[in-house]
Amino acid sequence: MKYTLFGESHGPAVGVVLEGVPAGLALDMEAIQFDMSRRAPGRNDLSTARREADVPHIASGVFEGRTTGAPLCAVVENTDTRSKDYERTRDLARPGHADYAAHVRYGGFNDYRGGGHFSGRLTAALVFAGAVAKQILAQKGVTVAAHISSVYGISDDPMEELEPLLAAQKKDFPVLNDEAGQRMQEAILEAKGDLDSVGGAIECGVFGLPAGLGAPGFGQNAEGIFSQYLFAVPAVKAVAFGAGVAFGLMRGSEANDPLYVDEDGSVKAEQNCAGGINGGITNGMPLTFEVTMRPTPSIARQQFTVDMAKNENAVLELKGRHDPCVVHRAVPVIEAAAALAACELMGV
Amino acid sequence: MKYTLFGESHGPAVGVVLEGVPAGLALDMEAIQFDMSRRAPGRNDLSTARREADVPHIASGVFEGRTTGAPLCAVVENTDTRSKDYERTRDLARPGHADYAAHVRYGGFNDYRGGGHFSGRLTAALVFAGAVAKQILAQKGVTVAAHISSVYGISDDPMEELEPLLAAQKKDFPVLNDEAGQRMQEAILEAKGDLDSVGGAIECGVFGLPAGLGAPGFGQNAEGIFSQYLFAVPAVKAVAFGAGVAFGLMRGSEANDPLYVDEDGSVKAEQNCAGGINGGITNGMPLTFEVTMRPTPSIARQQFTVDMAKNENAVLELKGRHDPCVVHRAVPVIEAAAALAACELMGV
Amino acid sequence: MKYTLFGESHGPAVGVVLEGVPAGLALDMEAIQFDMSRRAPGRNDLSTARREADVPHIASGVFEGRTTGAPLCAVVENTDTRSKDYERTRDLARPGHADYAAHVRYGGFNDYRGGGHFSGRLTAALVFAGAVAKQILAQKGVTVAAHISSVYGISDDPMEELEPLLAAQKKDFPVLNDEAGQRMQEAILEAKGDLDSVGGAIECGVFGLPAGLGAPGFGQNAEGIFSQYLFAVPAVKAVAFGAGVAFGLMRGSEANDPLYVDEDGSVKAEQNCAGGINGGITNGMPLTFEVTMRPTPSIARQQFTVDMAKNENAVLELKGRHDPCVVHRAVPVIEAAAALAACELMGV
Amino acid sequence: MKYTLFGESHGPAVGVVLEGVPAGLALDMEAIQFDMSRRAPGRNDLSTARREADVPHIASGVFEGRTTGAPLCAVVENTDTRSKDYERTRDLARPGHADYAAHVRYGGFNDYRGGGHFSGRLTAALVFAGAVAKQILAQKGVTVAAHISSVYGISDDPMEELEPLLAAQKKDFPVLNDEAGQRMQEAILEAKGDLDSVGGAIECGVFGLPAGLGAPGFGQNAEGIFSQYLFAVPAVKAVAFGAGVAFGLMRGSEANDPLYVDEDGSVKAEQNCAGGINGGITNGMPLTFEVTMRPTPSIARQQFTVDMAKNENAVLELKGRHDPCVVHRAVPVIEAAAALAACELMGV
Repeated sequence: MKYTLFGESHGPAVGVVLEGVPAGLALDMEAIQFDMSRRAPGRNDLSTARREADVPHIASGVFEGRTTGAPLCAVVENTDTRSKDYERTRDLARPGHADYAAHVRYGGFNDYRGGGHFSGRLTAALVFAGAVAKQILAQKGVTVAAHISSVYGISDDPMEELEPLLAAQKKDFPVLNDEAGQRMQEAILEAKGDLDSVGGAIECGVFGLPAGLGAPGFGQNAEGIFSQYLFAVPAVKAVAFGAGVAFGLMRGSEANDPLYVDEDGSVKAEQNCAGGINGGITNGMPLTFEVTMRPTPSIARQQFTVDMAKNENAVLELKGRHDPCVVHRAVPVIEAAAALAACELMGV
Repeated sequence: MKYTLFGESHGPAVGVVLEGVPAGLALDMEAIQFDMSRRAPGRNDLSTARREADVPHIASGVFEGRTTGAPLCAVVENTDTRSKDYERTRDLARPGHADYAAHVRYGGFNDYRGGGHFSGRLTAALVFAGAVAKQILAQKGVTVAAHISSVYGISDDPMEELEPLLAAQKKDFPVLNDEAGQRMQEAILEAKGDLDSVGGAIECGVFGLPAGLGAPGFGQNAEGIFSQYLFAVPAVKAVAFGAGVAFGLMRGSEANDPLYVDEDGSVKAEQNCAGGINGGITNGMPLTFEVTMRPTPSIARQQFTVDMAKNENAVLELKGRHDPCVVHRAVPVIEAAAALAACELMGV
Repeated sequence: MKYTLFGESHGPAVGVVLEGVPAGLALDMEAIQFDMSRRAPGRNDLSTARREADVPHIASGVFEGRTTGAPLCAVVENTDTRSKDYERTRDLARPGHADYAAHVRYGGFNDYRGGGHFSGRLTAALVFAGAVAKQILAQKGVTVAAHISSVYGISDDPMEELEPLLAAQKKDFPVLNDEAGQRMQEAILEAKGDLDSVGGAIECGVFGLPAGLGAPGFGQNAEGIFSQYLFAVPAVKAVAFGAGVAFGLMRGSEANDPLYVDEDGSVKAEQNCAGGINGGITNGMPLTFEVTMRPTPSIARQQFTVDMAKNENAVLELKGRHDPCVVHRAVPVIEAAAALAACELMGV
Repeated sequence: MKYTLFGESHGPAVGVVLEGVPAGLALDMEAIQFDMSRRAPGRNDLSTARREADVPHIASGVFEGRTTGAPLCAVVENTDTRSKDYERTRDLARPGHADYAAHVRYGGFNDYRGGGHFSGRLTAALVFAGAVAKQILAQKGVTVAAHISSVYGISDDPMEELEPLLAAQKKDFPVLNDEAGQRMQEAILEAKGDLDSVGGAIECGVFGLPAGLGAPGFGQNAEGIFSQYLFAVPAVKAVAFGAGVAFGLMRGSEANDPLYVDEDGSVKAEQNCAGGINGGITNGMPLTFEVTMRPTPSIARQQFTVDMAKNENAVLELKGRHDPCVVHRAVPVIEAAAALAACELMGV
């Protein structure tokens, strides 16, 4: 299964083509809309004020309610755009944003309005694709679930079982520990008050994967496959599996998962330090990882930058509606990327 | 340019086929051997006692001293193998190692001796490929250099300029701060004395890349491309670009790199928090990242595990010669992976 | 540059996403529409009576009239569908069509109306993609042009120079020799009168390609790259380069192109038997090939077949509007496939 | 499963790395050697006088007689090279050969001796890969078999059933009709006597493939997948499926295969005009195709050409040992390419 995104933040729509969807799947549109809404903007003051219904329209690949096996194209309209906000600062590269790199890459022809194709808006289409992937995985007993693991240094409880994650998915602010979540939200609102933004991290698990998927080689190892999908999500700057960066602080005797035969005869690891992957191959434990997301680069504060047209220094004061934090809205996006990666790993 | 590894730890040889090497390159075999030797085992008591000369033999793709453009195959012989060390524990999965996952994946037919194709031994061939890639990059003004950034929590100085890194490459223990390096080595020897191992991290920079390489989409973004190569290196469990996991602790006003026009008219970022990449595209600053490497899973301590043949619990006491830490030997390996990734990004 | 088609014959639309389009191209929509119209149905009694305007709508990737470098999505609406024609014969596999193979492949869930995603209708989107590719190639001095080389055994004059081909492109029935074209049309109408269809062949040239593109290996040779695009066109069953199947009747002394240095110092081949390709690499001569297209499988005659629902023999009398020959409408489709292949070969 | 070839005609060896070989396969080395020998040179006066034993050495991926799932590398040594034959004509491009195109592509750095990496010698490694693929297919009930369908216009009987093809495989000159084969051999020897060469064609069938493999899209259709492998074989210039170029002479009522339910309940096509493929998907009938192979370009006759060093016209009189026809030796090569393609189609 391959996905191809298209669209721009201020174009008519964003969309996705999914190739290789198994035929005969009765799409649960309600479940898809649930994930779309978890990501949708404009729901509260933690997110951008742009309001989008984010209802996907299916243009192909579904017939009489079931997937046909042909490419599935879904389109999500853009309805609430204010392009004029971007006119004035068109030539001023937003620090931390793709503006300057894209300007060089595309010779200045990229659509600058709202970040164009670089906008987080594209993740609406990605969430659609992921929601379809989740339904395919569900038929194979595989579930993907994530939570906010930290915002601006404030940590949620660590993820352990699937159930509490499924409960967290239903929350407006998807954490395991609501008290920590409360403090995270305060940090976000405080940053917003300061015309600033904050970063954070998302922890995700893929539960139910069988052992023996993947291979050690380039392009085949489970970590490489997942990272390819995860780094395609805007703002992700780090990907860590299992114990992740903590491995650097460990001894082998701590990091090695003692193995044992469980009551049902299956082989298990005691701690799952490896995040379900050894030698690039799944080991039957939940596949776990954490991604770090940078703070939203679009902030209203005065910033020093360059005028790309004049190639001279400039000062930027940004208008427009921006997210003071994207971590909470990105939870279903990371799940989507993980679900697509899991499909690849399972040979879907 | 694509690389394909082959070989096993205790087979006759390991090797690599490099496709797409530009024709006409006069291979600097001395530079290649330099990198091979940096990785080679048996040089001191910080590494495994297995001794290998690691001299690559070129089987194709070079004619009259220059690359022909045809696939370049290089073979590195295995000369110092002791396969009988592995006989006794053949059915006992080493915790933290790929043994169990590989057993499931390959139905028990994988070569268990010394880890077979999963062995770090394969990185000898990868270093060869990377050394060729470095010579291609050098012609384009691009240099890759890495250092040990930490071992068991002991940190080296942060990487800033290229020159000190090139100096570090020549050291037996490649750090910027030798005093910190001394403490790292003590930690490694202490772990070794405890029949244990330690993890760590490597920081790497790609200097001289032009702005405008990569694209935002899946499979095209610079982070995704690099991560694909880096996670193909055994023991790498986390990859972080620029400020990496620290982005999660930051505000936008800290994480956004103020841009300015440099004296030569080029656009620069003040801090390079982004690690040279915005929106998946290079921005002209050095591309920087850090990888975390897990502690060597093969340790001589008694460990609890399973007997894969009998599917029952077991106790493992491993013989064989093992590295108490792979971080220092992995520095040229990470450089190799980065050099191959940089070639892909540059369209080589 | 990669293309991804979506849509079904009787769905709301067909479309294409083109990734990797160079930024800054001022799209000539008139030239695009010219190719769209050459392929469009309903223009005369040689084609299906279904009438479609085939005006492409651009959904992304173009801003202020120029390509942005982001994925370019174009949609072509379906307006003249008569799905009820297909209800009655839903379970009867049309011999020669994909119905049975698709039924097995997709478990009966494929959209059967008008052939669904298997319909020649999808080539409308392919022609759009090819028209964009042609504009990219034009900037590099490369032109793609094709003509009907035969219908039902009646042959056109062989292709030699570019100019007559460009003149043929403007004809309703694109041949070099109009007298031969007249006889071809009579053969088509005669078949139509007999409730039958006819096959034929299309010869195509890519003019202006430099020498030295491609490589001998799998997935890299020019013939392999072109064939991949050409066999993705419905009804193409054979692809032959240069002298093609006539090579089997030749001696080396006939087939070898004597080389000479032309007045401008360039190396040329006297006959271009090789079709511009030696060893998988372009040699600077026009790249030429011929594709054979099978007769339209949908014919109104009584045919013996199977009822897929009952798994028993059946007799089919097809309703619906069908092309008695697709060769003339397929000329811009083959050009499109060739233009996309040429872009890949040129590294676009 | 992916294959990567390496080596040159006059280098130390040619070889192949096969990635993705299923683990646990007990390699039948005798069957592999049988195919190697069918292709090997120097067996009689119909082929080049170069004599090679063509015994493959396995360098990795096999342990205790069975495949391990790790990359399988096999090496075939070059023992009978006469490189000095090529010294004198080093700068003279052989007409019809890759010399000139390769010279441009690789800036003159390609290994010219015996055609270097462009040599048919590389097909020794391809036959090895194909022989492994055949053993994988055999476990799934799939058999690949080919025969010479024509040489210099002299045709063999058409292929129909598997059994006579298996009998032909055992012949020195693999045809169905030995009388026709006799005349073909005479044509080859006659050409040889004239210091010339001849072309021909090979017809191949893949028997036992289930219906429902492949998909209509680019890169997924069965014809496209097969053509990719077939055009990677040197000298192949045309690929035609089923009725092939004869489709251009047909009406739909002739070309459409009437379908029927066979005694065992399976759906069959009466004639198999489609060559086992409809809409890019297998239909359960044997997959059949024919490839046309150009006459060997290396002939001893005087030929007009260019001196690539001086960029001026020249006359070539070639020394060296050459095949007056490669068609008979290419039969196992085409089988190998088909076997690898069939593995891809089956998801191996």
